[in-house]
Amino acid sequence: MSEDYRDMWKSLGLDLEAHDALLDVLGKGYQDIYLAQKNRPEGMGYFDFVMSEVHGLRIKELIDEKAAGRKVIGSFCVFVPEEIVRAANATLVGLCTGADFATEEVEKLLPRNTCSLIKSAFGFKLGKVCPYIESADMIVGENTCDGKKKSYEVLNNLIPNLYVMDLPQMKSDEGRALLKAEYLRFKEAVEKLTGVTIDAERLKTGIGIVNNKRKAIHRLSDLRKADPAPISGLDALLGNQVFFYDDPVRFTDSVNKICDELERRIEKAEGVFPAGTPRILLSGCPMAVPNWKLPWIIETSGAVIVGEESCVGERGTRNLTDEGGSTVEELMDAIVDRHFQVDCAIFTPNPERLSHIEEMFREYKADGVIHYGLQFCQPYITESMPVEKALEEKDIPTLRIDTDYSMEDVGQLKTRVEAFIELLK
Amino acid sequence: MSEDYRDMWKSLGLDLEAHDALLDVLGKGYQDIYLAQKNRPEGMGYFDFVMSEVHGLRIKELIDEKAAGRKVIGSFCVFVPEEIVRAANATLVGLCTGADFATEEVEKLLPRNTCSLIKSAFGFKLGKVCPYIESADMIVGENTCDGKKKSYEVLNNLIPNLYVMDLPQMKSDEGRALLKAEYLRFKEAVEKLTGVTIDAERLKTGIGIVNNKRKAIHRLSDLRKADPAPISGLDALLGNQVFFYDDPVRFTDSVNKICDELERRIEKAEGVFPAGTPRILLSGCPMAVPNWKLPWIIETSGAVIVGEESCVGERGTRNLTDEGGSTVEELMDAIVDRHFQVDCAIFTPNPERLSHIEEMFREYKADGVIHYGLQFCQPYITESMPVEKALEEKDIPTLRIDTDYSMEDVGQLKTRVEAFIELLK
Repeated sequence: MSEDYRDMWKSLGLDLEAHDALLDVLGKGYQDIYLAQKNRPEGMGYFDFVMSEVHGLRIKELIDEKAAGRKVIGSFCVFVPEEIVRAANATLVGLCTGADFATEEVEKLLPRNTCSLIKSAFGFKLGKVCPYIESADMIVGENTCDGKKKSYEVLNNLIPNLYVMDLPQMKSDEGRALLKAEYLRFKEAVEKLTGVTIDAERLKTGIGIVNNKRKAIHRLSDLRKADPAPISGLDALLGNQVFFYDDPVRFTDSVNKICDELERRIEKAEGVFPAGTPRILLSGCPMAVPNWKLPWIIETSGAVIVGEESCVGERGTRNLTDEGGSTVEELMDAIVDRHFQVDCAIFTPNPERLSHIEEMFREYKADGVIHYGLQFCQPYITESMPVEKALEEKDIPTLRIDTDYSMEDVGQLKTRVEAFIELLK
Repeated sequence: MSEDYRDMWKSLGLDLEAHDALLDVLGKGYQDIYLAQKNRPEGMGYFDFVMSEVHGLRIKELIDEKAAGRKVIGSFCVFVPEEIVRAANATLVGLCTGADFATEEVEKLLPRNTCSLIKSAFGFKLGKVCPYIESADMIVGENTCDGKKKSYEVLNNLIPNLYVMDLPQMKSDEGRALLKAEYLRFKEAVEKLTGVTIDAERLKTGIGIVNNKRKAIHRLSDLRKADPAPISGLDALLGNQVFFYDDPVRFTDSVNKICDELERRIEKAEGVFPAGTPRILLSGCPMAVPNWKLPWIIETSGAVIVGEESCVGERGTRNLTDEGGSTVEELMDAIVDRHFQVDCAIFTPNPERLSHIEEMFREYKADGVIHYGLQFCQPYITESMPVEKALEEKDIPTLRIDTDYSMEDVGQLKTRVEAFIELLK
């Protein structure tokens, strides 16, 4: 990245030395995991560029937007509706997590037995290495799991602009009413932050922009059904990750361009791995940049990932928001209905998720499911045991892996993954 | 216990051999921890009897009640309103937990990293050693923490009569509306189970019975402010534990009798430990029978426990339900308001709990606070870190202990507790 950014990072209050070290590790990881792949689509060049500039040009864009009067809102979860943010001419960005950082400092504030995702988000803040959280005018937390819910109380002491959104735990009438009340409260907060009154037209535009981004991902996902798979799981995951950071219109165009290329590949029966390569459906916890450990292990162990049943994947993107409404009330209801369908393990019961895993297994012609649980993530790890049982009762080979962001268990995981893939051949 | 009970246990489907082994361990534990104490109030004889018959006579009573047409409802949490159960002429009992049992079987269904309380409840069910769960006509689960919420989905496959109550996560208007809707739904479910229509008079009677039980505990708690403490923390904890099992009217009388005796003790400046013994406030996770490990360590290390900021303690009992209403609507609102005040760590934020700890510290003239976290209980353990910080900023000596039900760490805990108590002298 250009030296020009150092002043920008400094003005954001980043710890330049620590940030250099982080970028160095990220760059090396990206080289070893992403650039080392073979037969990548040319269109991935755009995402390579995005990743090389993820703390550089993208931050500069946000700061330029802010200078022009736009607001930036940061979030940690797919339950924060981007439609509302876009409707107020503001930008929603996912905040940094996905790698261990400043763990010693974090464990002074949070229990050691907190999931890596939460500890990482705190580590990026405490270590002063996340330009997104430092650029944001508002940070939105959400009461999803206990770990996040209770850690936001601690985060509230570290940042001045935390907004906490409540979420229901059951898909009851009262649960929906609570979600709707919270989305209306969020709309008001965004209006207050931006000075923009969100009318039906603005909301419709916001919904359209976000739906287009989701539709591009749907198109990409659909192309992954081909054998040989035209794109690696790692590259497709990167698309799903960049979904949370990039300008949505540019992102949509870039994904569609890759899709054009993948269609040509499929016509020529070209793939990233040979036809007949065992096909894996990943299911479970979200994987934020640069948490590529498990996909990398899988795709260097003789298999290809053909789908992600994850918030950073199909759970997060599969549902569109109905654009048919003509009033704010109708459109807000559509946003509530859309998000109320998300089959996150925070809901009880959550049978839709199991159905979705089975559906994805069939649609993507997978040979096996690898369930990914972030250690100490109670909702997904508790759900993983009945999910594994139900899948195996339907003769769907399933491997359950619980891990964190450390690299200590890579050897052991590789052995387990290789043995599982061997069974699928 | 009498041999007569064996047929009863058999008819309930208990595993007699495993149950014998459990009772044997419980009896020995009670002997070593409770009966070995000195200077106990005579009135504790009643609780010794209750404990010796906790799987015997009390179960026979429940079965006799059932034969006479009453219903028995089992629960795991103070958010299940006993007022409503009593109003329908039914009996609410706390279900077994508090000791590791059948752990290997449990860990086939739940993650190893689940808190001991939840694993224990499953262990008692899977090991067929809890006569309460086997006697109950309805089992009520509640969406408190992620661990319980998600494990009830698994429990639902093990028992035919699970009813799940949803709970809010924030004390907002929508949160209260959700709680009220859930309590109304529970009232209907109890009416359906019992065939009793709950009118205002019945509800008032139910509230009265439960309030009296709470008032007796308030009286007991108040007497513990004396120095020397007239009753040990272990014995007072036992009262708070039996609160969940015993016939409420008999329980109320028995606690009041002990209070009469404690008043006489206080007049004579008699105590269980010498005046000036360091006084500890316990704060944190609930302790179910026979989870006496930490109190036993504390009271054999030179200190006396003078209060429990816990669901099995003052958090669970301190608030009374307003009896002033004259309609079902008013009385149900009073029940909702009463339970909405409970400052459980499942709520976010939860500043009332910190205030209550500080208030108890002053009122009970404590010298220090020991925070008890059940390992993997994310709500309390995450809350414990800012709580410790806030207390220490107010010069309240605080020791944070996270542990489980195993005895492996007793030596290490004793060393830490002794060192802490030494500092208080």
